[in-house]
Amino acid sequence: MFGTLNEIELERLIAGQWVGRIACCDNGKPYMVPISYAYDGTFIYCHSDEGRKVNIMRRNPQVCFQVDEMKDMANWKSVVMEGFFEEITDPKERNDAMLTLLNRYLPVISSVTTHLGEHWPFYPDDASAIDGLIFKIRIQSKFGKFESNTLSPAIPG
Amino acid sequence: MFGTLNEIELERLIAGQWVGRIACCDNGKPYMVPISYAYDGTFIYCHSDEGRKVNIMRRNPQVCFQVDEMKDMANWKSVVMEGFFEEITDPKERNDAMLTLLNRYLPVISSVTTHLGEHWPFYPDDASAIDGLIFKIRIQSKFGKFESNTLSPAIPG
Repeated sequence: MFGTLNEIELERLIAGQWVGRIACCDNGKPYMVPISYAYDGTFIYCHSDEGRKVNIMRRNPQVCFQVDEMKDMANWKSVVMEGFFEEITDPKERNDAMLTLLNRYLPVISSVTTHLGEHWPFYPDDASAIDGLIFKIRIQSKFGKFESNTLSPAIPG
Repeated sequence: MFGTLNEIELERLIAGQWVGRIACCDNGKPYMVPISYAYDGTFIYCHSDEGRKVNIMRRNPQVCFQVDEMKDMANWKSVVMEGFFEEITDPKERNDAMLTLLNRYLPVISSVTTHLGEHWPFYPDDASAIDGLIFKIRIQSKFGKFESNTLSPAIPG
């Protein structure tokens, strides 16, 4: 069966995934890439290098962000969000957003002890020392769909 | 390590996946959804119902199509394609495209025998009897990236 995700299922899906896809428009030409993210219940936070998508979003901040969970072709959930790109430049807000991202990611990255006795990955002493751009997506709308099918074995007539 | 997929890796990735994401632009506003597809080495073929994405692509046929394979956060491949939406209306071409899609999908869908003795899913006698819209994407560019990391266990000093 096909259906629409309710509010709780939709929030759970966004909070539960690590990678989404972000789409933007460059003078009528769509561009999209996968990107890791963290969700605090209000904003989507992302870390990015400078490059094509950031250049496009600075000119046109309208974005579409999509997250899904695909078990197989007949069992999946997907949510499509529309919103606006906002670059985070305030040092305090950037630091908080970076910690939101680190708190989401570091626990799921395999940890090793290097031959120098360091643990990798590690929390930096100062999150502001991490290079790159931090942005958030101000979500305007969310819409989720699912397909769920259990093929039961045939009952011989 | 990060890197760029070469031509062979890129073609293999597109041919090997079943679901991609298609993005389009609606007067400067991006829209994107996951969609199943088949690739014949030249075109991406998709089946769709009428709706928002089709309405947008009929007005602005520029699309971005993205396919990936995500093992984990540190091991993934992704390809981003830019191209044009082309609706298939010619009956012969529509039938061929539908068979390309069926040949890709039916083998990976679990098969059951219903209580009526029918096998489901089944090849239709006439692919033109299947409802919905068939379109192809005329690909203009492809660009693929990967990340590959093997975390080796720590060797105690």
